[in-house]
Amino acid sequence: MPNLVSRRQFTVEWAHCDPAGIVFNSRFFEYFDWGTWILFETALGVKPENLSGALGIILPLVDVGARFIAPARFGDVVELNSEISEFRRSSFDVAHRLTISGELAVEGRESRVWAKRDAASPSGIKALPIPDDIISRFQT
Amino acid sequence: MPNLVSRRQFTVEWAHCDPAGIVFNSRFFEYFDWGTWILFETALGVKPENLSGALGIILPLVDVGARFIAPARFGDVVELNSEISEFRRSSFDVAHRLTISGELAVEGRESRVWAKRDAASPSGIKALPIPDDIISRFQT
Amino acid sequence: MPNLVSRRQFTVEWAHCDPAGIVFNSRFFEYFDWGTWILFETALGVKPENLSGALGIILPLVDVGARFIAPARFGDVVELNSEISEFRRSSFDVAHRLTISGELAVEGRESRVWAKRDAASPSGIKALPIPDDIISRFQT
Amino acid sequence: MPNLVSRRQFTVEWAHCDPAGIVFNSRFFEYFDWGTWILFETALGVKPENLSGALGIILPLVDVGARFIAPARFGDVVELNSEISEFRRSSFDVAHRLTISGELAVEGRESRVWAKRDAASPSGIKALPIPDDIISRFQT
Repeated sequence: MPNLVSRRQFTVEWAHCDPAGIVFNSRFFEYFDWGTWILFETALGVKPENLSGALGIILPLVDVGARFIAPARFGDVVELNSEISEFRRSSFDVAHRLTISGELAVEGRESRVWAKRDAASPSGIKALPIPDDIISRFQT
Repeated sequence: MPNLVSRRQFTVEWAHCDPAGIVFNSRFFEYFDWGTWILFETALGVKPENLSGALGIILPLVDVGARFIAPARFGDVVELNSEISEFRRSSFDVAHRLTISGELAVEGRESRVWAKRDAASPSGIKALPIPDDIISRFQT
Repeated sequence: MPNLVSRRQFTVEWAHCDPAGIVFNSRFFEYFDWGTWILFETALGVKPENLSGALGIILPLVDVGARFIAPARFGDVVELNSEISEFRRSSFDVAHRLTISGELAVEGRESRVWAKRDAASPSGIKALPIPDDIISRFQT
Repeated sequence: MPNLVSRRQFTVEWAHCDPAGIVFNSRFFEYFDWGTWILFETALGVKPENLSGALGIILPLVDVGARFIAPARFGDVVELNSEISEFRRSSFDVAHRLTISGELAVEGRESRVWAKRDAASPSGIKALPIPDDIISRFQT
């Protein structure tokens, strides 16, 4: 089954850009984070601020990456598409694609753990298996 | 008695600057915040991350301002001087001065409340009188 | 004549919030900046990224301030209203109001100069009188 | 020959942290960027703000990544070590390691192009071969 893809459109702000006149790379990771929250809201119908409470989980980030194909500039209208590219037992990857005027500008990737807080663990968290009924909600 | 003045020196980073090639205004409020933590560490000898725990208080911001006299640019070495310009019964003002090569570039001001968390209050906090022995520590 | 008021609605993102769970104060100045660009687009019909080119001017910030009445939290839907509260000969003030669920949360203020770049000036800019036909566009 | 490794020590600020009380992931890419500028200053003896002018080049980022091993928290003293892990004909990789109390917390990676601005190119830049005498400066 194909992946559910969430979409967000936004405009690049002056404050996002650096002296080269393009979006500074760290901002893309803010965009990706927001894309993931919106993907979960789209799939599960839970508002971002209620997600941890509703599911009893947290989603710590363990690995991220981005590939910059074309610059994004002040005033550019960006479409951000986000989908889960892979579910593993207790972790998953989110793929983000930013397009500007229909052209791919940036590809991003986040790897997150499906976990709960666990005071007894050295890391403070305990990974949990991702429920099948959650996984199925990210397919269309 | 004269005010205790804390000092921090730092270099303006590329990521702090906007397409005009100067520090974007919001960044100065990060600098001011850090200046306040350092001022409290200088006065009270408590590390920023331990301040709330050690004193049993929080310092919510209620008013801020900045005046921009000269731009700060990538690579500029900034000296940030911070002092408490006024103590009131349960609030106080912090004055920040940023100088670059000895010239005043930015003046900032924060007004903060001396408070504790209070679940019974509509705002979630309760203002407290600032102890005299705290106030005296901010003078030299 | 009443002032033209521009409106922008947005949602507070996780990345905007600090360990107290509320929007860190510097972010509001990103919101204010964006509010000013939108106000100019609303009044003059010029996209933010074209404003300097179309008018031959820049709008350097000389003074800003904010008053925090109620906290903004992750997921809060914010309405940002922006208007020019005063025009002077070659500078002006922008007033920003952030409301959440109809309640005023933050008031902001920016003072900006109407200027052009001027290599002959020590500051690199030269203030210009604000044209009357520009001022009239900010009234309804 | 072993790689030259530049070092920077800094303290995690309140404004860097999110509601989970840890550094929000985008901030690490600000740290990495600063690490790269410092590495170039260490190797070439050119201040960051003069690098483009002195060498006639720009260093656009084409790929970045980070792996999060342990969280960084408000007040943590971080040591950032940066080195060039690979030079290719006209691009190179920078490896960043953040340690806290001697323990590895975050690994980062940047891939950058050695380029000059080129108005005739569709991308606006033209990749150049990295001079051998530059490469040798990043070895000890």
